[in-house]
Amino acid sequence: MSDKEKISTWFQHLQADIIRQLEEGDGKGKFIYDEWQRAEGGGGKSAVISNGNIIEKGGVNYSAVYGDTPEFLIRNDSTLAGSSFYATGVSIVLHPESPMIPIIHMNVRYFEAGENVFWFGGGIDLTPHYVNEEDAKFFHQTLKDACDLHHQDYYNQFKRWADDYFFISHRNETRGVGGIFFDHLSGDKEQLFEFVKTVGSTFAPLYVSLMKKHASEPYEPIHKQWQYIRRGRYAEFNLVYDKGTKFGLETNGRTESILMSLPPRAEWAYNHQPQAGSNEALTLSMLKKGINWV
Amino acid sequence: MSDKEKISTWFQHLQADIIRQLEEGDGKGKFIYDEWQRAEGGGGKSAVISNGNIIEKGGVNYSAVYGDTPEFLIRNDSTLAGSSFYATGVSIVLHPESPMIPIIHMNVRYFEAGENVFWFGGGIDLTPHYVNEEDAKFFHQTLKDACDLHHQDYYNQFKRWADDYFFISHRNETRGVGGIFFDHLSGDKEQLFEFVKTVGSTFAPLYVSLMKKHASEPYEPIHKQWQYIRRGRYAEFNLVYDKGTKFGLETNGRTESILMSLPPRAEWAYNHQPQAGSNEALTLSMLKKGINWV
Repeated sequence: MSDKEKISTWFQHLQADIIRQLEEGDGKGKFIYDEWQRAEGGGGKSAVISNGNIIEKGGVNYSAVYGDTPEFLIRNDSTLAGSSFYATGVSIVLHPESPMIPIIHMNVRYFEAGENVFWFGGGIDLTPHYVNEEDAKFFHQTLKDACDLHHQDYYNQFKRWADDYFFISHRNETRGVGGIFFDHLSGDKEQLFEFVKTVGSTFAPLYVSLMKKHASEPYEPIHKQWQYIRRGRYAEFNLVYDKGTKFGLETNGRTESILMSLPPRAEWAYNHQPQAGSNEALTLSMLKKGINWV
Repeated sequence: MSDKEKISTWFQHLQADIIRQLEEGDGKGKFIYDEWQRAEGGGGKSAVISNGNIIEKGGVNYSAVYGDTPEFLIRNDSTLAGSSFYATGVSIVLHPESPMIPIIHMNVRYFEAGENVFWFGGGIDLTPHYVNEEDAKFFHQTLKDACDLHHQDYYNQFKRWADDYFFISHRNETRGVGGIFFDHLSGDKEQLFEFVKTVGSTFAPLYVSLMKKHASEPYEPIHKQWQYIRRGRYAEFNLVYDKGTKFGLETNGRTESILMSLPPRAEWAYNHQPQAGSNEALTLSMLKKGINWV
Protein backbone atom coordinates (compact mmCIF):
# COMPACT_ATOMS: atom_id res chain seq x y z
CA MET A 1 0.00 0.00 0.00
CA SER A 2 1.38 3.42 -0.95
CA ASP A 3 1.74 6.18 1.64
CA LYS A 4 -1.21 8.09 0.28
CA GLU A 5 -3.43 5.00 0.36
CA LYS A 6 -2.32 4.22 3.90
CA ILE A 7 -3.04 7.79 5.01
CA SER A 8 -6.39 8.19 3.26
CA THR A 9 -7.51 4.80 4.57
CA TRP A 10 -6.63 5.91 8.07
CA PHE A 11 -8.58 9.16 7.54
CA GLN A 12 -11.63 7.16 6.41
CA HIS A 13 -11.47 5.11 9.58
CA LEU A 14 -11.02 8.30 11.61
CA GLN A 15 -14.18 9.76 10.07
CA ALA A 16 -16.17 6.62 10.97
CA ASP A 17 -14.72 6.52 14.47
CA ILE A 18 -15.45 10.20 15.20
CA ILE A 19 -19.01 9.81 13.88
CA ARG A 20 -19.55 6.83 16.19
CA GLN A 21 -18.31 8.77 19.22
CA LEU A 22 -20.31 11.89 18.37
CA GLU A 23 -23.55 9.97 17.80
CA GLU A 24 -23.01 8.16 21.09
CA GLY A 25 -22.27 11.47 22.85
CA ASP A 26 -25.27 13.21 21.30
CA GLY A 27 -27.67 10.35 22.03
CA LYS A 28 -30.17 11.28 19.31
CA GLY A 29 -28.68 12.88 16.17
CA LYS A 30 -27.66 10.59 13.32
CA PHE A 31 -25.28 11.52 10.54
CA ILE A 32 -26.51 11.32 6.99
CA TYR A 33 -24.05 10.59 4.21
CA ASP A 34 -23.43 12.03 0.77
CA GLU A 35 -20.77 10.48 -1.41
CA TRP A 36 -19.55 12.71 -4.20
CA GLN A 37 -17.18 12.38 -7.14
CA ARG A 38 -14.90 15.06 -8.49
CA ALA A 39 -14.89 15.25 -12.29
CA GLU A 40 -11.10 15.72 -12.40
CA GLY A 41 -10.39 12.78 -10.04
CA GLY A 42 -11.31 11.48 -6.60
CA GLY A 43 -14.18 12.53 -4.41
CA GLY A 44 -15.36 12.30 -0.86
CA LYS A 45 -17.92 11.38 1.70
CA SER A 46 -19.75 14.12 3.56
CA ALA A 47 -21.47 13.22 6.81
CA VAL A 48 -23.86 15.78 8.22
CA ILE A 49 -25.83 15.85 11.46
CA SER A 50 -28.73 18.12 12.28
CA ASN A 51 -31.13 18.59 15.17
CA GLY A 52 -29.44 16.23 17.58
CA ASN A 53 -29.95 16.44 21.33
CA ILE A 54 -26.78 18.48 21.61
CA ILE A 55 -25.45 19.14 18.11
CA GLU A 56 -27.74 21.43 16.13
CA LYS A 57 -25.76 21.23 12.89
CA GLY A 58 -22.40 19.88 11.92
CA GLY A 59 -20.37 17.93 9.45
CA VAL A 60 -17.57 15.37 9.51
CA ASN A 61 -16.20 15.32 5.97
CA TYR A 62 -13.68 13.03 4.36
CA SER A 63 -12.18 13.58 0.93
CA ALA A 64 -9.37 12.28 -1.28
CA VAL A 65 -8.89 14.12 -4.55
CA TYR A 66 -6.21 13.94 -7.20
CA GLY A 67 -5.29 15.11 -10.68
CA ASP A 68 -2.86 17.45 -12.41
CA THR A 69 -0.96 19.64 -9.98
CA PRO A 70 -2.62 23.08 -10.09
CA GLU A 71 -0.83 26.03 -11.69
CA PHE A 72 -0.48 28.08 -8.48
CA LEU A 73 1.58 25.29 -6.87
CA ILE A 74 3.82 24.98 -9.91
CA ARG A 75 4.41 28.73 -9.71
CA ASN A 76 5.92 28.19 -6.24
CA ASP A 77 7.87 25.07 -7.21
CA SER A 78 8.73 24.60 -10.88
CA THR A 79 9.82 20.98 -10.35
CA LEU A 80 6.10 20.17 -10.04
CA ALA A 81 5.38 21.09 -13.69
CA GLY A 82 3.57 18.22 -15.36
CA SER A 83 3.17 16.27 -12.09
CA SER A 84 0.11 14.89 -10.34
CA PHE A 85 -1.13 15.81 -6.88
CA TYR A 86 -3.09 13.92 -4.25
CA ALA A 87 -4.85 15.55 -1.28
CA THR A 88 -6.80 13.81 1.45
CA GLY A 89 -8.24 14.93 4.76
CA VAL A 90 -10.94 15.00 7.37
CA SER A 91 -12.63 18.29 8.22
CA ILE A 92 -15.12 18.91 11.01
CA VAL A 93 -17.24 21.78 12.34
CA LEU A 94 -19.93 21.28 14.98
CA HIS A 95 -22.50 23.88 16.06
CA PRO A 96 -24.20 22.88 19.32
CA GLU A 97 -27.76 23.90 20.15
CA SER A 98 -26.79 25.22 23.58
CA PRO A 99 -24.90 28.51 23.86
CA MET A 100 -23.18 26.97 26.90
CA ILE A 101 -21.37 24.45 24.68
CA PRO A 102 -18.56 25.68 22.42
CA ILE A 103 -18.39 25.39 18.65
CA ILE A 104 -15.49 23.19 17.57
CA HIS A 105 -13.42 22.70 14.45
CA MET A 106 -10.91 20.01 13.57
CA ASN A 107 -9.02 19.31 10.38
CA VAL A 108 -6.24 16.89 9.42
CA ARG A 109 -4.88 16.73 5.89
CA TYR A 110 -2.15 15.28 3.74
CA PHE A 111 -0.92 16.57 0.39
CA GLU A 112 1.59 15.21 -2.07
CA ALA A 113 2.69 16.19 -5.56
CA GLY A 114 5.27 14.81 -7.95
CA GLU A 115 7.89 12.42 -6.59
CA ASN A 116 9.25 14.32 -3.62
CA VAL A 117 6.84 16.91 -2.33
CA PHE A 118 4.50 16.18 0.53
CA TRP A 119 3.16 17.88 3.63
CA PHE A 120 0.71 17.47 6.48
CA GLY A 121 -1.55 20.14 7.88
CA GLY A 122 -4.33 20.42 10.41
CA GLY A 123 -5.56 21.83 13.66
CA ILE A 124 -8.20 21.93 16.34
CA ASP A 125 -9.71 25.15 17.67
CA LEU A 126 -12.48 25.92 20.12
CA THR A 127 -15.01 28.75 19.83
CA PRO A 128 -16.99 29.14 23.04
CA HIS A 129 -20.00 31.46 22.92
CA TYR A 130 -19.08 32.14 26.54
CA VAL A 131 -15.43 31.65 27.40
CA ASN A 132 -15.12 29.25 30.33
CA GLU A 133 -11.59 29.35 31.72
CA GLU A 134 -11.73 25.83 33.09
CA ASP A 135 -12.75 24.51 29.65
CA ALA A 136 -10.10 26.55 27.87
CA LYS A 137 -7.39 25.24 30.22
CA PHE A 138 -8.58 21.66 29.88
CA PHE A 139 -8.78 22.04 26.09
CA HIS A 140 -5.29 23.49 25.75
CA GLN A 141 -3.78 21.05 28.26
CA THR A 142 -5.24 18.13 26.29
CA LEU A 143 -3.77 19.53 23.07
CA LYS A 144 -0.43 20.13 24.77
CA ASP A 145 -0.34 16.57 26.09
CA ALA A 146 -1.06 15.29 22.58
CA CYS A 147 1.65 17.50 21.04
CA ASP A 148 4.20 16.64 23.76
CA LEU A 149 4.02 12.97 22.77
CA HIS A 150 5.68 13.96 19.49
CA HIS A 151 7.83 17.05 19.92
CA GLN A 152 8.46 19.40 22.82
CA ASP A 153 8.11 22.48 20.59
CA TYR A 154 4.91 21.52 18.82
CA TYR A 155 2.39 22.88 21.29
CA ASN A 156 3.96 26.33 21.68
CA GLN A 157 4.61 26.65 17.98
CA PHE A 158 1.20 25.45 16.82
CA LYS A 159 -0.69 27.29 19.56
CA ARG A 160 0.85 30.57 18.36
CA TRP A 161 0.04 29.64 14.78
CA ALA A 162 -3.61 29.08 15.76
CA ASP A 163 -3.77 32.48 17.49
CA ASP A 164 -2.58 34.09 14.25
CA TYR A 165 -4.70 31.98 11.92
CA PHE A 166 -8.06 31.97 13.71
CA PHE A 167 -8.15 35.75 13.91
CA ILE A 168 -10.91 38.06 12.64
CA SER A 169 -8.77 41.10 11.77
CA HIS A 170 -11.66 43.44 10.94
CA ARG A 171 -13.08 42.79 14.44
CA ASN A 172 -9.66 42.71 16.08
CA GLU A 173 -10.72 39.56 17.91
CA THR A 174 -9.78 35.88 17.80
CA ARG A 175 -12.45 33.44 16.63
CA GLY A 176 -12.39 31.74 20.02
CA VAL A 177 -9.81 30.52 22.52
CA GLY A 178 -7.61 29.10 19.77
CA GLY A 179 -5.99 25.69 19.92
CA ILE A 180 -3.38 24.38 17.50
CA PHE A 181 -2.84 24.96 13.78
CA PHE A 182 -0.08 23.65 11.53
CA ASP A 183 0.52 23.54 7.80
CA HIS A 184 3.15 22.41 5.28
CA LEU A 185 4.81 20.10 7.80
CA SER A 186 7.32 17.91 5.99
CA GLY A 187 10.31 15.88 7.07
CA ASP A 188 10.04 12.38 8.53
CA LYS A 189 6.76 11.24 7.01
CA GLU A 190 6.19 8.34 9.41
CA GLN A 191 6.70 10.51 12.48
CA LEU A 192 4.53 13.31 11.13
CA PHE A 193 1.78 10.85 10.28
CA GLU A 194 1.92 9.55 13.85
CA PHE A 195 1.51 13.13 15.12
CA VAL A 196 -1.46 13.76 12.80
CA LYS A 197 -3.01 10.48 13.98
CA THR A 198 -2.69 11.65 17.58
CA VAL A 199 -4.37 14.97 16.70
CA GLY A 200 -7.22 13.20 14.89
CA SER A 201 -7.75 10.73 17.72
CA THR A 202 -7.67 13.43 20.38
CA PHE A 203 -10.62 15.29 18.90
CA ALA A 204 -13.70 13.19 19.65
CA PRO A 205 -13.14 12.33 23.34
CA LEU A 206 -12.14 15.95 23.98
CA TYR A 207 -15.27 17.43 22.42
CA VAL A 208 -17.64 14.78 23.78
CA SER A 209 -16.43 15.55 27.29
CA LEU A 210 -17.18 19.27 26.75
CA MET A 211 -20.58 18.46 25.24
CA LYS A 212 -21.54 16.30 28.19
CA LYS A 213 -20.14 18.67 30.79
CA HIS A 214 -22.45 21.52 29.70
CA ALA A 215 -25.38 19.65 28.16
CA SER A 216 -27.75 20.13 31.04
CA GLU A 217 -26.86 23.72 31.91
CA PRO A 218 -29.89 26.00 31.69
CA TYR A 219 -29.85 29.08 29.49
CA GLU A 220 -32.10 32.04 28.67
CA PRO A 221 -33.09 33.84 25.46
CA ILE A 222 -30.33 36.41 26.08
CA HIS A 223 -27.76 33.63 25.82
CA LYS A 224 -29.26 32.36 22.54
CA GLN A 225 -29.17 35.92 21.23
CA TRP A 226 -25.47 36.19 21.99
CA GLN A 227 -24.88 32.76 20.46
CA TYR A 228 -26.42 34.01 17.17
CA ILE A 229 -24.15 37.06 17.22
CA ARG A 230 -21.07 34.92 17.84
CA ARG A 231 -22.14 32.56 15.08
CA GLY A 232 -22.28 35.60 12.79
CA ARG A 233 -18.62 36.18 13.60
CA TYR A 234 -17.91 32.52 12.85
CA ALA A 235 -19.54 32.94 9.42
CA GLU A 236 -17.48 36.09 8.84
CA PHE A 237 -14.26 34.24 9.61
CA ASN A 238 -15.08 31.29 7.39
CA LEU A 239 -16.27 33.33 4.42
CA VAL A 240 -13.67 36.11 4.59
CA TYR A 241 -10.48 34.45 5.90
CA ASP A 242 -10.54 30.67 6.03
CA LYS A 243 -8.00 29.36 3.51
CA GLY A 244 -9.67 25.96 3.11
CA THR A 245 -13.04 27.57 2.35
CA LYS A 246 -11.48 30.02 -0.11
CA PHE A 247 -9.48 27.27 -1.83
CA GLY A 248 -12.54 25.03 -2.04
CA LEU A 249 -14.83 27.70 -3.46
CA GLU A 250 -12.22 28.92 -5.95
CA THR A 251 -11.35 25.46 -7.23
CA ASN A 252 -14.95 24.50 -7.81
CA GLY A 253 -15.15 22.12 -4.84
CA ARG A 254 -18.43 20.71 -3.56
CA THR A 255 -20.06 23.84 -2.12
CA GLU A 256 -22.39 22.08 0.31
CA SER A 257 -19.50 20.14 1.82
CA ILE A 258 -17.29 23.22 2.10
CA LEU A 259 -20.01 25.39 3.62
CA MET A 260 -21.21 22.79 6.13
CA SER A 261 -19.08 24.88 8.49
CA LEU A 262 -21.64 27.70 8.46
CA PRO A 263 -23.98 27.94 11.43
CA PRO A 264 -27.63 26.84 11.24
CA ARG A 265 -28.72 30.35 12.22
CA ALA A 266 -26.72 33.55 12.68
CA GLU A 267 -27.59 37.16 13.43
CA TRP A 268 -26.07 40.56 12.81
CA ALA A 269 -27.11 43.53 14.93
CA TYR A 270 -25.64 46.92 14.09
CA ASN A 271 -22.84 47.87 16.44
CA HIS A 272 -23.76 45.27 19.05
CA GLN A 273 -21.94 46.06 22.31
CA PRO A 274 -22.32 43.87 25.38
CA GLN A 275 -23.06 45.62 28.66
CA ALA A 276 -19.97 46.49 30.69
CA GLY A 277 -19.28 43.80 33.26
CA SER A 278 -21.57 41.25 31.62
CA ASN A 279 -20.53 37.69 30.78
CA GLU A 280 -20.69 38.66 27.13
CA ALA A 281 -18.23 41.51 27.72
CA LEU A 282 -15.99 39.17 29.70
CA THR A 283 -15.95 36.76 26.77
CA LEU A 284 -15.01 39.54 24.34
CA SER A 285 -12.17 40.57 26.62
CA MET A 286 -10.73 37.05 26.32
CA LEU A 287 -10.89 36.85 22.52
CA LYS A 288 -7.27 37.96 22.25
CA LYS A 289 -4.06 36.48 20.94
CA GLY A 290 -1.34 35.29 23.26
CA ILE A 291 -3.28 34.11 26.29
CA ASN A 292 -1.41 31.24 27.93
CA TRP A 293 -4.00 28.71 28.99
CA VAL A 294 -1.60 26.07 30.29
CA MET B 1 -16.55 74.96 -4.83
CA SER B 2 -14.33 72.17 -6.20
CA ASP B 3 -15.81 69.20 -8.04
CA LYS B 4 -15.23 66.89 -5.13
CA GLU B 5 -16.94 69.28 -2.70
CA LYS B 6 -19.87 69.70 -5.08
CA ILE B 7 -20.24 65.94 -5.47
CA SER B 8 -19.84 65.04 -1.82
CA THR B 9 -22.29 67.77 -0.83
CA TRP B 10 -24.80 66.37 -3.30
CA PHE B 11 -24.24 62.87 -1.83
CA GLN B 12 -24.91 64.21 1.67
CA HIS B 13 -28.18 65.70 0.48
CA LEU B 14 -29.01 62.43 -1.28
CA GLN B 15 -28.49 60.52 1.96
CA ALA B 16 -30.83 62.84 3.83
CA ASP B 17 -33.42 62.74 1.07
CA ILE B 18 -33.42 58.93 0.84
CA ILE B 19 -33.71 58.65 4.62
CA ARG B 20 -36.71 60.98 4.59
CA GLN B 21 -38.45 58.96 1.89
CA LEU B 22 -37.68 55.62 3.54
CA GLU B 23 -38.90 56.76 6.96
CA GLU B 24 -42.07 58.07 5.36
CA GLY B 25 -42.52 54.80 3.43
CA ASP B 26 -41.86 52.66 6.46
CA GLY B 27 -44.13 54.67 8.75
CA LYS B 28 -42.45 53.62 11.98
CA GLY B 29 -38.69 52.96 11.75
CA LYS B 30 -36.33 55.86 12.44
CA PHE B 31 -32.72 55.99 11.36
CA ILE B 32 -30.08 56.45 14.01
CA TYR B 33 -26.85 58.21 13.12
CA ASP B 34 -23.20 57.53 13.80
CA GLU B 35 -20.63 60.01 12.62
CA TRP B 36 -17.11 58.66 12.38
CA GLN B 37 -13.67 60.00 11.58
CA ARG B 38 -10.94 58.24 9.68
CA ALA B 39 -7.51 58.68 11.25
CA GLU B 40 -5.84 59.16 7.85
CA GLY B 41 -8.41 61.77 6.68
CA GLY B 42 -12.13 62.25 6.24
CA GLY B 43 -14.94 60.20 7.70
CA GLY B 44 -18.59 59.51 7.26
CA LYS B 45 -22.07 59.37 8.62
CA SER B 46 -23.75 56.00 9.01
CA ALA B 47 -27.52 55.90 9.29
CA VAL B 48 -29.04 52.64 10.41
CA ILE B 49 -32.66 51.59 10.78
CA SER B 50 -33.95 48.56 12.64
CA ASN B 51 -37.32 47.06 13.48
CA GLY B 52 -39.42 49.36 11.31
CA ASN B 53 -42.88 48.42 10.12
CA ILE B 54 -41.41 47.21 6.86
CA ILE B 55 -37.62 47.46 7.07
CA GLU B 56 -36.19 45.04 9.60
CA LYS B 57 -32.58 46.24 9.25
CA GLY B 58 -30.75 48.50 6.87
CA GLY B 59 -28.26 51.25 6.43
CA VAL B 60 -27.89 54.39 4.33
CA ASN B 61 -24.23 55.35 4.63
CA TYR B 62 -22.41 58.42 3.44
CA SER B 63 -18.64 58.81 3.48
CA ALA B 64 -15.94 61.09 2.12
CA VAL B 65 -12.38 60.00 2.81
CA TYR B 66 -9.05 61.27 1.58
CA GLY B 67 -5.31 60.94 2.07
CA ASP B 68 -2.26 59.60 0.27
CA THR B 69 -3.15 57.59 -2.82
CA PRO B 70 -2.81 53.92 -1.82
CA GLU B 71 0.03 51.80 -3.18
CA PHE B 72 -2.17 49.41 -5.20
CA LEU B 73 -3.51 52.31 -7.28
CA ILE B 74 -0.04 53.66 -7.91
CA ARG B 75 0.97 50.21 -9.11
CA ASN B 76 -1.66 50.54 -11.87
CA ASP B 77 -0.86 54.13 -12.70
CA SER B 78 2.62 55.39 -11.82
CA THR B 79 1.64 59.03 -12.47
CA LEU B 80 -0.25 58.83 -9.15
CA ALA B 81 2.94 58.37 -7.11
CA GLY B 82 3.00 60.94 -4.33
CA SER B 83 -0.54 62.16 -5.05
CA SER B 84 -3.62 62.42 -2.84
CA PHE B 85 -6.95 60.67 -3.37
CA TYR B 86 -10.49 61.58 -2.45
CA ALA B 87 -13.39 59.12 -2.41
CA THR B 88 -17.00 59.83 -1.56
CA GLY B 89 -20.21 57.88 -1.88
CA VAL B 90 -23.55 56.72 -0.59
CA SER B 91 -24.13 53.03 0.03
CA ILE B 92 -27.41 51.36 0.95
CA VAL B 93 -28.69 47.89 1.80
CA LEU B 94 -32.19 47.28 3.16
CA HIS B 95 -33.49 44.00 4.56
CA PRO B 96 -37.29 44.02 4.85
CA GLU B 97 -39.14 42.03 7.51
CA SER B 98 -41.50 40.46 4.96
CA PRO B 99 -40.20 37.74 2.64
CA MET B 100 -42.63 39.13 0.06
CA ILE B 101 -40.59 42.35 -0.21
CA PRO B 102 -37.20 42.23 -1.95
CA ILE B 103 -33.85 43.15 -0.43
CA ILE B 104 -32.34 46.15 -2.21
CA HIS B 105 -28.88 47.63 -2.63
CA MET B 106 -27.81 50.96 -4.08
CA ASN B 107 -24.43 52.61 -4.28
CA VAL B 108 -23.10 55.76 -5.96
CA ARG B 109 -19.49 56.81 -5.62
CA TYR B 110 -16.88 59.22 -6.92
CA PHE B 111 -13.12 58.85 -6.79
CA GLU B 112 -10.31 61.17 -7.76
CA ALA B 113 -6.53 61.08 -7.40
CA GLY B 114 -3.77 63.41 -8.47
CA GLU B 115 -4.57 66.12 -10.99
CA ASN B 116 -6.22 64.17 -13.78
CA VAL B 117 -7.64 60.87 -12.58
CA PHE B 118 -11.27 60.52 -11.61
CA TRP B 119 -14.12 58.08 -12.00
CA PHE B 120 -17.69 57.39 -10.97
CA GLY B 121 -19.15 54.04 -10.00
CA GLY B 122 -22.39 52.70 -8.66
CA GLY B 123 -25.39 50.52 -9.18
CA ILE B 124 -28.76 49.34 -7.97
CA ASP B 125 -29.73 45.69 -7.70
CA LEU B 126 -32.78 43.88 -6.41
CA THR B 127 -32.78 40.60 -4.47
CA PRO B 128 -36.31 39.22 -4.14
CA HIS B 129 -36.76 36.28 -1.77
CA TYR B 130 -39.47 35.28 -4.26
CA VAL B 131 -38.96 36.51 -7.79
CA ASN B 132 -42.05 38.41 -8.95
CA GLU B 133 -41.91 38.93 -12.70
CA GLU B 134 -44.06 42.06 -12.61
CA ASP B 135 -41.72 43.63 -10.03
CA ALA B 136 -38.61 42.61 -11.95
CA LYS B 137 -39.97 44.15 -15.15
CA PHE B 138 -41.02 47.35 -13.38
CA PHE B 139 -37.63 47.54 -11.64
CA HIS B 140 -35.64 47.06 -14.82
CA GLN B 141 -37.90 49.36 -16.86
CA THR B 142 -37.42 52.10 -14.28
CA LEU B 143 -33.65 51.66 -14.41
CA LYS B 144 -33.74 51.61 -18.21
CA ASP B 145 -35.76 54.82 -18.30
CA ALA B 146 -33.23 56.45 -15.96
CA CYS B 147 -30.27 55.24 -18.06
CA ASP B 148 -31.92 56.25 -21.34
CA LEU B 149 -32.03 59.87 -20.20
CA HIS B 150 -28.24 59.86 -20.41
CA HIS B 151 -27.02 57.37 -22.99
CA GLN B 152 -28.78 54.80 -25.15
CA ASP B 153 -26.17 52.12 -24.40
CA TYR B 154 -26.03 52.56 -20.64
CA TYR B 155 -28.87 50.24 -19.65
CA ASN B 156 -27.76 47.28 -21.79
CA GLN B 157 -24.14 47.73 -20.83
CA PHE B 158 -24.71 48.22 -17.10
CA LYS B 159 -27.42 45.55 -16.88
CA ARG B 160 -24.95 43.01 -18.28
CA TRP B 161 -22.30 44.27 -15.85
CA ALA B 162 -24.72 43.75 -12.94
CA ASP B 163 -25.47 40.18 -14.08
CA ASP B 164 -21.74 39.44 -14.01
CA TYR B 165 -21.00 41.32 -10.80
CA PHE B 166 -23.88 40.21 -8.55
CA PHE B 167 -23.15 36.54 -9.17
CA ILE B 168 -22.51 33.87 -6.54
CA SER B 169 -20.19 31.62 -8.55
CA HIS B 170 -19.96 28.82 -5.99
CA ARG B 171 -23.77 28.50 -6.12
CA ASN B 172 -23.94 29.18 -9.85
CA GLU B 173 -26.76 31.64 -9.19
CA THR B 174 -27.21 35.39 -9.40
CA ARG B 175 -27.79 37.24 -6.13
CA GLY B 176 -31.21 38.35 -7.38
CA VAL B 177 -32.75 39.74 -10.54
CA GLY B 178 -29.81 42.08 -11.11
CA GLY B 179 -30.15 45.71 -12.06
CA ILE B 180 -27.34 48.00 -13.15
CA PHE B 181 -23.69 48.18 -12.14
CA PHE B 182 -20.95 50.47 -13.42
CA ASP B 183 -17.44 51.34 -12.35
CA HIS B 184 -14.46 53.47 -13.42
CA LEU B 185 -16.63 55.69 -15.62
CA SER B 186 -14.62 58.67 -16.74
CA GLY B 187 -14.92 61.19 -19.55
CA ASP B 188 -17.21 64.22 -19.37
CA LYS B 189 -17.42 64.74 -15.62
CA GLU B 190 -20.48 67.00 -15.69
CA GLN B 191 -22.47 64.54 -17.80
CA LEU B 192 -21.40 61.56 -15.71
CA PHE B 193 -22.31 63.36 -12.50
CA GLU B 194 -25.75 64.07 -13.96
CA PHE B 195 -26.14 60.35 -14.71
CA VAL B 196 -25.06 59.40 -11.18
CA LYS B 197 -27.53 61.94 -9.78
CA THR B 198 -30.32 60.32 -11.77
CA VAL B 199 -29.35 56.88 -10.44
CA GLY B 200 -29.27 58.16 -6.86
CA SER B 201 -32.59 59.94 -7.19
CA THR B 202 -34.27 56.94 -8.82
CA PHE B 203 -33.62 54.68 -5.86
CA ALA B 204 -35.98 55.81 -3.09
CA PRO B 205 -39.27 56.17 -5.04
CA LEU B 206 -38.55 52.85 -6.78
CA TYR B 207 -37.99 50.92 -3.57
CA VAL B 208 -40.75 52.65 -1.61
CA SER B 209 -43.23 51.64 -4.31
CA LEU B 210 -42.12 47.99 -4.01
CA MET B 211 -42.27 48.18 -0.20
CA LYS B 212 -45.80 49.52 -0.25
CA LYS B 213 -47.01 47.18 -2.99
CA HIS B 214 -46.19 44.07 -0.92
CA ALA B 215 -46.40 45.39 2.64
CA SER B 216 -49.78 43.87 3.44
CA GLU B 217 -49.31 40.51 1.70
CA PRO B 218 -49.71 37.62 4.13
CA TYR B 219 -46.96 35.03 4.55
CA GLU B 220 -46.40 31.80 6.44
CA PRO B 221 -43.47 30.34 8.41
CA ILE B 222 -42.32 28.48 5.26
CA HIS B 223 -41.80 31.83 3.54
CA LYS B 224 -39.76 33.19 6.46
CA GLN B 225 -37.68 30.01 6.39
CA TRP B 226 -36.89 30.56 2.71
CA GLN B 227 -36.12 34.22 3.40
CA TYR B 228 -33.50 33.18 5.98
CA ILE B 229 -31.91 30.80 3.46
CA ARG B 230 -31.82 33.52 0.78
CA ARG B 231 -30.33 35.95 3.29
CA GLY B 232 -27.61 33.36 3.91
CA ARG B 233 -26.79 33.59 0.20
CA TYR B 234 -26.75 37.39 0.49
CA ALA B 235 -24.22 37.14 3.34
CA GLU B 236 -22.13 34.73 1.24
CA PHE B 237 -22.04 37.18 -1.66
CA ASN B 238 -21.11 40.14 0.50
CA LEU B 239 -18.43 38.38 2.49
CA VAL B 240 -16.88 36.34 -0.34
CA TYR B 241 -17.24 38.49 -3.47
CA ASP B 242 -18.32 42.07 -2.87
CA LYS B 243 -15.43 44.34 -3.84
CA GLY B 244 -16.57 47.23 -1.65
CA THR B 245 -16.76 44.99 1.42
CA LYS B 246 -13.37 43.43 0.70
CA PHE B 247 -11.76 46.83 0.07
CA GLY B 248 -13.31 48.23 3.25
CA LEU B 249 -12.23 45.35 5.47
CA GLU B 250 -8.71 45.23 4.01
CA THR B 251 -8.13 48.97 4.33
CA ASN B 252 -9.21 49.09 7.94
CA GLY B 253 -12.54 50.82 7.23
CA ARG B 254 -15.27 51.16 9.84
CA THR B 255 -16.40 47.52 10.18
CA GLU B 256 -19.89 48.25 11.49
CA SER B 257 -20.61 50.59 8.57
CA ILE B 258 -19.25 48.14 5.99
CA LEU B 259 -21.10 45.16 7.43
CA MET B 260 -24.42 46.97 7.83
CA SER B 261 -25.20 45.08 4.59
CA LEU B 262 -25.46 41.77 6.45
CA PRO B 263 -28.95 40.50 7.22
CA PRO B 264 -30.44 40.68 10.73
CA ARG B 265 -30.88 36.88 10.71
CA ALA B 266 -29.72 34.25 8.23
CA GLU B 267 -29.83 30.48 8.11
CA TRP B 268 -27.86 27.70 6.47
CA ALA B 269 -29.42 24.27 6.03
CA TYR B 270 -27.26 21.53 4.56
CA ASN B 271 -28.03 20.97 0.89
CA HIS B 272 -31.36 22.77 1.01
CA GLN B 273 -33.37 21.96 -2.13
CA PRO B 274 -36.80 23.44 -2.73
CA GLN B 275 -39.56 21.07 -3.77
CA ALA B 276 -39.96 20.67 -7.52
CA GLY B 277 -42.66 22.99 -8.80
CA SER B 278 -42.69 25.15 -5.65
CA ASN B 279 -42.44 28.94 -5.66
CA GLU B 280 -39.01 28.56 -4.11
CA ALA B 281 -37.89 26.34 -7.01
CA LEU B 282 -39.38 28.82 -9.48
CA THR B 283 -37.35 31.60 -7.88
CA LEU B 284 -34.13 29.56 -8.11
CA SER B 285 -34.81 28.92 -11.79
CA MET B 286 -34.87 32.68 -12.39
CA LEU B 287 -31.60 33.45 -10.59
CA LYS B 288 -29.70 33.29 -13.87
CA LYS B 289 -27.68 35.74 -15.92
CA GLY B 290 -28.98 37.14 -19.18
CA ILE B 291 -32.73 37.31 -18.53
CA ASN B 292 -34.19 40.25 -20.45
CA TRP B 293 -36.73 41.87 -18.17
CA VAL B 294 -37.64 44.79 -20.45
